[in-house]
Amino acid sequence: MTVSTLLQRRHKVLGDQSPLFYDEPLHLVRGEGVWLYDINGKRYLDVYNNVPSVGHCHPHVVAALSNQAAKLNIHTRYLDEGIVAYAERLTATFADPLDAVMFTCTGSEANELALRIARFASGGHGVIVSDYNYHGNSTSLAEVTTALPAPEPFGRHARAVPIPNLYHAKQGVSADQLAEEYAAKVAGAIASLKADGIKPAALLIDTLFANEGLPRLPAGFVDKAVALIREAGGLFIADEVQAGFARTGEHLWGHQAHKVVPDIVTLGKPMGNGHPLAGLVSSRELIESFGRNAMYFNTFGGSPVAAAVGMAVLDVIENEQLLANAHQVGAHVHTRLQKLAEKHAIIGDVRGKGLFFAMELVRDRASKEPAGAEARIIVNTMRENGVLISKIGPADNILKLRPPLVFSIANADLFVDTLDHVLSRL
Amino acid sequence: MTVSTLLQRRHKVLGDQSPLFYDEPLHLVRGEGVWLYDINGKRYLDVYNNVPSVGHCHPHVVAALSNQAAKLNIHTRYLDEGIVAYAERLTATFADPLDAVMFTCTGSEANELALRIARFASGGHGVIVSDYNYHGNSTSLAEVTTALPAPEPFGRHARAVPIPNLYHAKQGVSADQLAEEYAAKVAGAIASLKADGIKPAALLIDTLFANEGLPRLPAGFVDKAVALIREAGGLFIADEVQAGFARTGEHLWGHQAHKVVPDIVTLGKPMGNGHPLAGLVSSRELIESFGRNAMYFNTFGGSPVAAAVGMAVLDVIENEQLLANAHQVGAHVHTRLQKLAEKHAIIGDVRGKGLFFAMELVRDRASKEPAGAEARIIVNTMRENGVLISKIGPADNILKLRPPLVFSIANADLFVDTLDHVLSRL
Repeated sequence: MTVSTLLQRRHKVLGDQSPLFYDEPLHLVRGEGVWLYDINGKRYLDVYNNVPSVGHCHPHVVAALSNQAAKLNIHTRYLDEGIVAYAERLTATFADPLDAVMFTCTGSEANELALRIARFASGGHGVIVSDYNYHGNSTSLAEVTTALPAPEPFGRHARAVPIPNLYHAKQGVSADQLAEEYAAKVAGAIASLKADGIKPAALLIDTLFANEGLPRLPAGFVDKAVALIREAGGLFIADEVQAGFARTGEHLWGHQAHKVVPDIVTLGKPMGNGHPLAGLVSSRELIESFGRNAMYFNTFGGSPVAAAVGMAVLDVIENEQLLANAHQVGAHVHTRLQKLAEKHAIIGDVRGKGLFFAMELVRDRASKEPAGAEARIIVNTMRENGVLISKIGPADNILKLRPPLVFSIANADLFVDTLDHVLSRL
Repeated sequence: MTVSTLLQRRHKVLGDQSPLFYDEPLHLVRGEGVWLYDINGKRYLDVYNNVPSVGHCHPHVVAALSNQAAKLNIHTRYLDEGIVAYAERLTATFADPLDAVMFTCTGSEANELALRIARFASGGHGVIVSDYNYHGNSTSLAEVTTALPAPEPFGRHARAVPIPNLYHAKQGVSADQLAEEYAAKVAGAIASLKADGIKPAALLIDTLFANEGLPRLPAGFVDKAVALIREAGGLFIADEVQAGFARTGEHLWGHQAHKVVPDIVTLGKPMGNGHPLAGLVSSRELIESFGRNAMYFNTFGGSPVAAAVGMAVLDVIENEQLLANAHQVGAHVHTRLQKLAEKHAIIGDVRGKGLFFAMELVRDRASKEPAGAEARIIVNTMRENGVLISKIGPADNILKLRPPLVFSIANADLFVDTLDHVLSRL
C-alpha cells in the first residue's frame, strides 16, 4: 500500500477536504511514549501531540481501558463507583466553588454545554471571545470562531477582542497599558452588545491562548476582563482543553496562572490520553440549576470505561510527576530555543510555558514580517528529519511545539538539535 | 458501599439532576452478552440497552479495542489504513449516492454536523422535525426538540409535525388519509416557515420514530414529506442513531423501510457497542463542498481505535447473523407479546420492528387513556424481577423494549414470562 494509493482511497470515502498534516501525508502505524512509527518503520519524535499527553499508548492507561471495557461499559443512568471516584478526584484539584462535573465525549461538546449553561444562568446570549479563537465544531461555536473558516456568519451576538501580545506591542507601550487597552476593548464589546439589545452571557477564552499563538501576555489582564463580564451579568468560561492537565508545568490548570476562579472550566483533549473523554467543572449549584431546566444526557459521556481511563491518566500524571517534568524539561527547551534565536535571525520570538512553546518566525526582526512560507518548509523538513511539529497563527508563521508530557531532556536536545540543523540549511 | 451512600457521593460531584433509572437506582458492576450484574451479584436480563448492541463486553470488540489502543491511537490528520477500510466497508452498505462518511464521537455531534451541512447546502435555516423528537444535546438540537425540557425556546425556525399513528387514528380514517394529512401538515410547515421569511434547510427525522413511541405508521408517508422538503430546497436527514445497525431486523438501516434515499444519514449509539463512535454518511460531493467552506475537525472522531472498534462491530453483526436474529427473535417476541395482550387489558397496543418494541399501556382500550403511573410501577417491578426495561412517550405510558441484538428465543421467553407475571400481579 503506497501512500498515494491510500490517499486516493481516503479521498474517496472521507472526501478530499478531511484535513491532513504535511505536504507528503504521514502513514503512521505505531506509537509509544514520545515516538511515532510510520509504515516503513521510520521513527518520529512527537513534538506536536498534546492529546496522548502521558505518552502514546501508555501501558497503564491501555490496561485500564481494556480491563474496564471487558467488565462493564454502560451509560451513567445506572450507579457506578468508578465514575463517582473519578469525579471526586478530578473536582478535588479545583478551587472553590468548582466542585461538580458534567462529562461529555469531546471538548467541542464541553464548550457547547458551557455556553448553554452560561446562557441559561445569565439569561443573556452575547459571547465575548478572543480574536483568532477556536473552541469547537458545533454551530454555536462556529458562530463565534475567527480562527477557522465556517459557513456560518460571525454572530451578531459575538464580539472578538484581540488578545494583547507584548511581542507585538508598539515601542514604549508598557504591559500595564496593554492590559488596560484590552480591558477597555472588552468594556467596549460589552457596551456594543448592549447597544444591539444583546445581554452578555459569557467571556469564553482559552487560558493559554493556544490558537492565538501563545501570545506574550501582560500580567493580570484576564482578571480585569473577568471582572467586567461579571459586572455585566455574564460568566467566565475558561477553556482548558489545551491548557489543562499539567501542560503549563506551573499548575494543573491554565487558569491558575490568573488570579480569578472561572465560573465554568471546560476540559478535553489530554483528559483520556486519546479516549473520547471531556467535560466541564463548575459549581454544583450551577449544574443542578441548569439540570432542573434541561434534561442533559450524554450517552457515552462519563461511562465506566471513560472514568477508568481518566483515572489512569491522573495516576500517570502523579506517579511520573509530569507537572514537575513539564516544568523542568520545559525550562530546558526554553533556554535552548532562546540560544537558537541568537543564531537564527528568522526566530523573532520564543515563548511558552511548561511543554507548550510558540516560536514566531519573521523575515525581519524590526518589521516582524511573518515568515509563513518558511514556517511551512521548516515543518515539512523537520518531518523529513524525524521530528513532528506544526504551525499556527493568522499568518501561519508560528511553530506549534507541544510534545507529550513524558518528554525527556534527551528528547528535548534531539528536537532542538534537529531544528538547529533544519534552520541552518534553510 | 450501600446504594444510598454511593448515591449521595454521586449527587455531590455530578449534581442531583444527572438522570438515573428506577425508583431505586441500580448499581451495576459487570455486563456480559444480554446480562448485567449488580453489586450483590444479582443478574438482570437487559431488554433496554441498544448501545451494547452486539452484547455487553463482546470479546471480539473488546479485543479490537484493546489491541488497537496498545498500538496507535491518534487523530485523522495522519494516514491510517484502518479508518479508510472501515469507511469503505461502512459506506458500501448504503445506496447511491451515499458514498462518503464523516466521523464524530456522538450521535449529537453527528446530528449537529448534519444540520450544519444541510444549512450550508440549502442556504436555508428552517428545520422540520416530528413532534416529540429528540436528536441530541447541543444548542441547535435543543432548539428543535419537543421531547425533553430545554431552557432554549423552541426555534422560530423550527416546526414540529406530529407523526401519524394508526393506533390513535379516528375510527374510519384510513392509512392513506393519515399519510395525506401528514403530508399536508408538512406542506403547511414549509409554507409557515416561508411566511416568516425562513428558507427550509432540512427535514430531520428518526426513521423508526423511537422517541415518538414507535408509532404504527401508514405506508409511504415519509416519502411524501421528503418530496415536499426537497421541492422547497431542503435536505432529508435520516437519524439512524437508534434505527441503524440491524436493529429493525429488516434492513441494516431504518430508512430502507421507506422508498426514498436520504441526503444525509446520521449514525451513533450501537456503532461502537459503547465506544464513543458516531458519524454521518452522505455523498462525497456534499461532504467535499461543505469541507471547502468549513474546516471541520473532530479530534477523537475516526481515530484508529474508533475504526477498529467499528469494524469489529460490523464483524459481529455479520458473523453472528444479527440482522436475521433480530428478525427471527423479534417475530417470536412480537407473537408472544400479542398473546399477552389478549390476557392483559392494560396492553393497548403492541408494535415494533425487529428487536425494538413499544407496548402502549392504557387504562381503557376504547378511550386509550394513558396508563403512565402503571407503566412506572411495571418498569420498577420488572427490575425487581430481574428484567431491565424502560418507558417513553409524552405520557410515559409506552414500554420501551430494546435488547441487545444477541437476544435469544430463551431470553425472549424469560422476558415475556416475567412481564406476564408482573402484569398479573399489578
